[in-house]
Amino acid sequence: MSELMSAAWELDAEDPLAGVRERFLLDDTVYLDGNSLGALPAHVPGRVEDVVRRQWGELRIRSWEESGWWTAPERIGDRIAPLVGAAPGQIVVGDSTSVNVFKALVAAVRMAGEGRDEILVDATTFPTDGYIAASAARLTGRTLRPVLPAEVPSALTGRTAAVLLNHVDYRTGRLHDLPGLTAAVHAAGGYAVWDLCHSAGALPVGLDEHGVDLAVGCTYKYLNGGPGAPAYLYVRRGLQGRFDSPLPGWNSHAEPFGMTSAYTPADGAVRGRVGTPDILSLLALEAALDVWDDVPVARVRAKSLALTDFFLRCVEAYVPAGRVENLTPVAHAERASQVALRCADAGEVMRTLIERGVVGDFRAPDVLRFGFTPLYVGFADVERAARVLGQVLGTA
Amino acid sequence: MSELMSAAWELDAEDPLAGVRERFLLDDTVYLDGNSLGALPAHVPGRVEDVVRRQWGELRIRSWEESGWWTAPERIGDRIAPLVGAAPGQIVVGDSTSVNVFKALVAAVRMAGEGRDEILVDATTFPTDGYIAASAARLTGRTLRPVLPAEVPSALTGRTAAVLLNHVDYRTGRLHDLPGLTAAVHAAGGYAVWDLCHSAGALPVGLDEHGVDLAVGCTYKYLNGGPGAPAYLYVRRGLQGRFDSPLPGWNSHAEPFGMTSAYTPADGAVRGRVGTPDILSLLALEAALDVWDDVPVARVRAKSLALTDFFLRCVEAYVPAGRVENLTPVAHAERASQVALRCADAGEVMRTLIERGVVGDFRAPDVLRFGFTPLYVGFADVERAARVLGQVLGTA
Repeated sequence: MSELMSAAWELDAEDPLAGVRERFLLDDTVYLDGNSLGALPAHVPGRVEDVVRRQWGELRIRSWEESGWWTAPERIGDRIAPLVGAAPGQIVVGDSTSVNVFKALVAAVRMAGEGRDEILVDATTFPTDGYIAASAARLTGRTLRPVLPAEVPSALTGRTAAVLLNHVDYRTGRLHDLPGLTAAVHAAGGYAVWDLCHSAGALPVGLDEHGVDLAVGCTYKYLNGGPGAPAYLYVRRGLQGRFDSPLPGWNSHAEPFGMTSAYTPADGAVRGRVGTPDILSLLALEAALDVWDDVPVARVRAKSLALTDFFLRCVEAYVPAGRVENLTPVAHAERASQVALRCADAGEVMRTLIERGVVGDFRAPDVLRFGFTPLYVGFADVERAARVLGQVLGTA
Repeated sequence: MSELMSAAWELDAEDPLAGVRERFLLDDTVYLDGNSLGALPAHVPGRVEDVVRRQWGELRIRSWEESGWWTAPERIGDRIAPLVGAAPGQIVVGDSTSVNVFKALVAAVRMAGEGRDEILVDATTFPTDGYIAASAARLTGRTLRPVLPAEVPSALTGRTAAVLLNHVDYRTGRLHDLPGLTAAVHAAGGYAVWDLCHSAGALPVGLDEHGVDLAVGCTYKYLNGGPGAPAYLYVRRGLQGRFDSPLPGWNSHAEPFGMTSAYTPADGAVRGRVGTPDILSLLALEAALDVWDDVPVARVRAKSLALTDFFLRCVEAYVPAGRVENLTPVAHAERASQVALRCADAGEVMRTLIERGVVGDFRAPDVLRFGFTPLYVGFADVERAARVLGQVLGTA
């Protein structure tokens, strides 16, 4: 057994989260794509079957009350809340991340008032945030200005209405300084909107602690909610009364079954709801969140860093020099839960890796992306992934 | 056996759709709430289990290609298309009805151009359409003017940008004149946006035939897609190149995996997509649509009218005079697939009906609403529902 294999064995033996893997349906594949689609928690199929057969099939319309369908968006929001450092009553689940970015950004601009006519957006953002921010700017008569996250502090002015940032860069895995940037936005009198897609479930976010104004995130990556599972919207409690949604659907009405033609927004997080919630996907997500019941996020973060540290160490040992370039920050404070390696023939390399049982993903034009979900990825997986990568790149 | 029981028996015996009921999981309840939540098609639980266990659980990320997840919104749109009289390539499925109303209305206003500054909305609309129309008007700098559907022709002017109408009134079951109103809107140079929630799957819509510009609808009523199943958006082919979405998420990009910061909209119906599609709910819907494979909508319409005719006849026979007032038009051309009865103590009456195995719903303040899904409701169900209603109202 090689030194790295032994090291992996020891790290797995000492891993307090090792047993959590059994809560998922996995196979021999090394699955390093949980930052794109989380694996299936083992108890979810049974729960979904109950939702379909009994709740829909037998109770039918009665389930809106009896099975708790109607309140699912806010109930599941409260399940996500502790994972992102939010007290209850500030998160609702529903719609896609893109739609929630729209709600959050338009609402933030409205909070900022007429005098502030500029929206800043992370120039390196996952594209949809930029497209939606452009639409929000157009519809609210503001100017959109893309800036690099590091340049946000110097770009803030009295004109800044809102700043849309990614907690983690989806390509490089760089973790941005949420506390510092939020404080800077606030010092300039603007509102900070954070996209947590690549951080929630992988590391502590601390929304309340750091005074984030609004946040959105998906649930199908590190939260394992299933393909296209509904996203969530956080609105800080102190701002909820001023949350003026551009999508005021009937589910956000103070009396949704009053069926009145005048819109009166509900109080609280519910104000972020829009139309009828997507029950099958929502309740699959609710079930998926059970795996977190005894799992502290701090422990997940510690393991995540250990996994990525070990992966970088194994890559250095196994991969021929010069074949890949690490794009992910080495400093822990700047690293989330993935490693991105630049590689000239990344598309072809990833195809081969997948054939050999190591699943990551390819991001155009030249990035191999490996996500490490601490709930079910172990150190032996990491060693094997790097070893197979070394074999593929050594013989290519 | 009473005369009406005999009549029901004969009508069921002659019903060419009688066998379709076996495609659903039903019980002894008379389920007249399919206009709120359609019943469960019997094969859907098995399909959902496959989606969860195999597609998500085993194939995981590969399913975006291998299981056809990525193209599901437009593929399922093409399954809905024949049910609403649309050629392929004009419908995408995803998001809620409310969100699709927003997309459609903002896009329609933009098509109409700067010179047209007014949006007309059905004053009797299901509330969410009105709330969302108000938001669309506010964000595009237009004025929103609620008008009764019958008054739309006289309200149209050269200022009219778009008109948002319901094909069917959700309270009364009145069927509005889609061909005539669409033609009137066009004659005034405006764009017609129709909400098909209470018509699709119950009667022919004829979107292409009547030149409708944009349309939206839910899939959990007469299409039986499941609780909160994704809604759909129709954009007439000739307008797709001018469809300028207020929610330009990455799924509507010409090259979604190009990950470019500049937004270039895709051609065709796909331009109506936004974020990552909600796969579990979408594929449950796709399975649910199988029940339509050999069912012509014209036959569904014929049975629907026969069911509601028979219900009104039974109500007249069984319910003490003066206890209810029929709000639903008697003329076939003005009636959709439900019957609404005004009743002073409607809330309490509906609770009792449900206890006695007849499920309709209550709409504030005083409406008993009964929906007739021709795919699984029979004439004996109708007779029993009216008979139990008569018993409840006779002894109340």
